[in-house]
Amino acid sequence: MSKPKLIQPRTLKGFRDFPPAVAIPREALIETAKATYRSFGFSPIDTPVLELTEILLGKGSDETDKQMYRFEDPGGRDVAMRFDLTIPFARFVAQNAGELGMPFKRYHVGPVWRGENTQRGRYREFLQCDFDTIGTENVMADTECALVICELFNRIGFTDRFTMHLNNRRVLSGVLEQLDLADQAVPVLRALDKLAKIGPEKVVEEMARTAGASASQADGVLALARLEGSNAKVLEALGPIVGDSELGRSGIEALGAVLAGVAAAGVPEGRVRLDVSIARGLDYYTGTVYETFLDDLPGIGSCCSGGRYDDLASLYTKERLPGVGASLGLDRVLAAMEELGMLGSTTTTAAVFIPYFDKDRGADYLRLATELRKAGLAVELYPEPRKLGAQLKYADRRGHRLAVIVGGDEFAQGTCQLKDLARKTSEELAQADLAAACASVLASQPTAGS
Amino acid sequence: MSKPKLIQPRTLKGFRDFPPAVAIPREALIETAKATYRSFGFSPIDTPVLELTEILLGKGSDETDKQMYRFEDPGGRDVAMRFDLTIPFARFVAQNAGELGMPFKRYHVGPVWRGENTQRGRYREFLQCDFDTIGTENVMADTECALVICELFNRIGFTDRFTMHLNNRRVLSGVLEQLDLADQAVPVLRALDKLAKIGPEKVVEEMARTAGASASQADGVLALARLEGSNAKVLEALGPIVGDSELGRSGIEALGAVLAGVAAAGVPEGRVRLDVSIARGLDYYTGTVYETFLDDLPGIGSCCSGGRYDDLASLYTKERLPGVGASLGLDRVLAAMEELGMLGSTTTTAAVFIPYFDKDRGADYLRLATELRKAGLAVELYPEPRKLGAQLKYADRRGHRLAVIVGGDEFAQGTCQLKDLARKTSEELAQADLAAACASVLASQPTAGS
Repeated sequence: MSKPKLIQPRTLKGFRDFPPAVAIPREALIETAKATYRSFGFSPIDTPVLELTEILLGKGSDETDKQMYRFEDPGGRDVAMRFDLTIPFARFVAQNAGELGMPFKRYHVGPVWRGENTQRGRYREFLQCDFDTIGTENVMADTECALVICELFNRIGFTDRFTMHLNNRRVLSGVLEQLDLADQAVPVLRALDKLAKIGPEKVVEEMARTAGASASQADGVLALARLEGSNAKVLEALGPIVGDSELGRSGIEALGAVLAGVAAAGVPEGRVRLDVSIARGLDYYTGTVYETFLDDLPGIGSCCSGGRYDDLASLYTKERLPGVGASLGLDRVLAAMEELGMLGSTTTTAAVFIPYFDKDRGADYLRLATELRKAGLAVELYPEPRKLGAQLKYADRRGHRLAVIVGGDEFAQGTCQLKDLARKTSEELAQADLAAACASVLASQPTAGS
Repeated sequence: MSKPKLIQPRTLKGFRDFPPAVAIPREALIETAKATYRSFGFSPIDTPVLELTEILLGKGSDETDKQMYRFEDPGGRDVAMRFDLTIPFARFVAQNAGELGMPFKRYHVGPVWRGENTQRGRYREFLQCDFDTIGTENVMADTECALVICELFNRIGFTDRFTMHLNNRRVLSGVLEQLDLADQAVPVLRALDKLAKIGPEKVVEEMARTAGASASQADGVLALARLEGSNAKVLEALGPIVGDSELGRSGIEALGAVLAGVAAAGVPEGRVRLDVSIARGLDYYTGTVYETFLDDLPGIGSCCSGGRYDDLASLYTKERLPGVGASLGLDRVLAAMEELGMLGSTTTTAAVFIPYFDKDRGADYLRLATELRKAGLAVELYPEPRKLGAQLKYADRRGHRLAVIVGGDEFAQGTCQLKDLARKTSEELAQADLAAACASVLASQPTAGS
C-alpha cells in the first residue's frame, strides 16, 4: 500500500481514551463491584449495545430521546445505541421471563451513550454498573439492596467513610396526602429536591409558583428536611406527620424493616441515615430510595443511587415485575478515589520486572520469568537486551514494585539481586528463594508515597 | 403515564442477549484471559466505541468498510462504530505515543460491530480480546506472545489439548524469492491458504490461473506443506528450500529462536507445531505468525491467531511502531467449551443458598448470610418467606451447590442442616461450623454430572 497523507489521530468530542494509568484502577473497580454483586447471588447478563429504536424511544425522558445516537443500520432498520441499562433489562426480561424464573437477580456492567452537552464536563460514553432483584415485593430485597451498597463501599476502600441515605417514596406520598398536595407531587418534589442548592425560601417560592402550594403547605413539606436525630427518632417523628395515611404508614414500616435488617447484618448505625427529604428520582421509584455519599467528598453527589419500582417492563409485557436495585456511579467513584489519593500511580499490571541485559541469556530469563509466574506472580520481562540503567528507568516510570537483576555470573551461580523499587533497597539471594522473597515484599505494606 | 400498546420485546437481527447461563462462563473466560495477560505485564486500555469515520474508513478491507455501522451523530459528525480493536489501538498509540513510552504492552477486551451476513451464523456484535507488544523488533517479544497463547489455553482448561501452529512470513517470502514468485505473493498465498479445503491439485490450478505459476513453481510452494517430522527436522529441511534468500534465512532464524524460547519456558514440544504452510493473514503480518487449534475440535478453526507486523500506526504517525500480538477468539472458545462439556449448567454465581421459610426470622437469616459472606462464600438468601419445597426447587433449577436449612428451632439451638444439592446428601451441624463445612464441600471435586 502506498503511503497516504497522515490522518490526524483524535477522539470524537465528548469521548475519551483510557490509558493504563486510568484503565488499571477502573478495571479493578469494575471487578470489585462484580465480585460484590456475585457474593449476594446476583448473576451477570449482557445485552446488545444497539436496540431497535422503538424499544428505546420515549422510555427515558424527552432529554434522553433527543440525546440518543439513533441511525439507520446497513439493513435499513431504525436503530439506536442504548442510553441506560434499565430499558434493555426491561426488554430482556419481557423477552425471556419464562426461561429466567422469578425472583431474578442480575447485574450488568456496560457502556451507555448520551449526546450530552460536553460544556458541563460530561462525557457522551460512560459506564453503568447496575444490580437489581425483580419478581418480589418483599422488603427483604430492599434490605439486601442496602447491604450490597454498604458492602460495595467497604470493599472499594471507603470503610466507615460513606453514608447511605434512605428514604421511601410512600412516606412522601403520605405527607403530601396529609397536606392535600397529593395531586401536585411532581412539582412539589422537584422543588424540594433543590433545597440544598437554593435554600428553603426559594423552595417555598417555587412550590407556590409551580404547585400552587400555600405557605403552610410548603412549610409542612419542608418540615421533613428539619427532622433531626437518630434514625429511630426520625422514624418515630414521622408517625404523626403522615397521620392516618395508609401509604405513609406502609412507607414508615418499610423504612423500619430496612433499618432493622441492615443493623442485624452488622452495618454500623453511622453508615445509614434516614433522610426523608430525598426527592430525586421519585417520579420513577415507588418505595425505598437510596443515595450514597462519600463522607470526605459529599459535594460530588450520590455515588450509588437506586430504589424500588412497581413494574419494570410494563411497556413490553403484561406480567407485572416489581423490583429494587441501584447503580454504582463508577466514574464518579473513580474521580473521588483519585482526588483522595486512593489510587496508585502505576501503569503496569506486573509487580515484578526482569531486565534483559545479558543478551546471550534469553532462554535463562524466560525460564526465570516462568518460574516466578508459576508461583503466582505477575512478571514483565523486558523484550530486548538493553543497558541495565535504561531498563531500570523504564521500570521506575511504569511503577513496577520489584526488579530482579540477573546477569551471566548470577545465572552461573544461581543467585540474583532483588531490588525493591519503592523502598529503594536491594538484597542478594539464591534464585531458589526468589519467588518467596517477592511474595513476602508484596504482602507487606508499601512505603508511603509508593 | 397512561398504558400505551405493548411493544414487542425483541433483539435486532444478528444481535443476541446473554442470559446468566451464558454470561457466567463468558465473564469467567474474559477474566481468565485478562489475568493471563496481566501475569505477563500487559496493561489494559480502553477506547471509545465510536470513532470519526475518517479514522476507520479504508483501514480494514472493502468488506469492513461496507459492513461498518456508520452514521451522523447528533452534532452532525460522520462517525462509525469500531469493527476491530486494532485500528482504534493504532489511533490511540499515535495520539498518546509520547506519554506511553516504548515498549508498550497492552490488552483490550471489548465488543466490535460488523454488519455481516447473518446467514452464515455470524453475529454482528462480538467480543475481541487482543494483546500486543509494540515498540520492539526483538524476537523475545514473539516468544513471549507464543508463551501467552500457551498459558491462555492452559488456564482456560485445554492443558495438553491444544496445538499452536507457528510460521514466519519471511520464510514464505524466501521460498517465493527462490521460486521467482516474489511478485506474485498475494495470489500464491491465497491459493496456498485453501490447501486443506480444496486439495493440492486445485491449488496448483489456482496458482497457475491467478499467479501464472508453472507446475514446478506451484509444486515448490506445495513442498512446504509436505514437510513432516519434528519441529527441529522441519526447521533443518527449510534451509535448502530458502537457499540464499536473506529474508528466508532470517525467518528460519526467528522461528528457531521462538522454538528454543518456548522450550526453555517449559512448553512441551507437542504444544507447538512448525507449520510453514500457514498463509492466512500474511498480507498483514511480516514475521512470526500464530494460529491455535483445539486438539478435540480442530475443525472449528484457529481459536487464537496473530503475528508480527512492521508498523502499527503508519496511517496516523510517522513514528515507526513494529509489534507483535494476537487475539483470542472468545466466542469460538466458549462454543467449543460448551460442545466439549466443559461448562457447568449453573445460572447462579452463589454456591450457597439460604431458603427464607420462617417469616419471623428475617433478621436471623440476614445475620447468617452475612457471616458466611464474611468467610468468603457467595450466598443467596431467598428474598421472601415461602414454602421450603418451592425454594429448594428454585435452588435446584438455579444450580446452587449447597442449601442451608434453618428454621426457628435451629436458630434457637444454633444448629442447621447443610444440604449438598449436587450429591443429594445432607448433614446436621452447629452454625458455628457452617462456614468451614461449606468451604470444605466446595473445595472437593463435585460429583460427576453435577
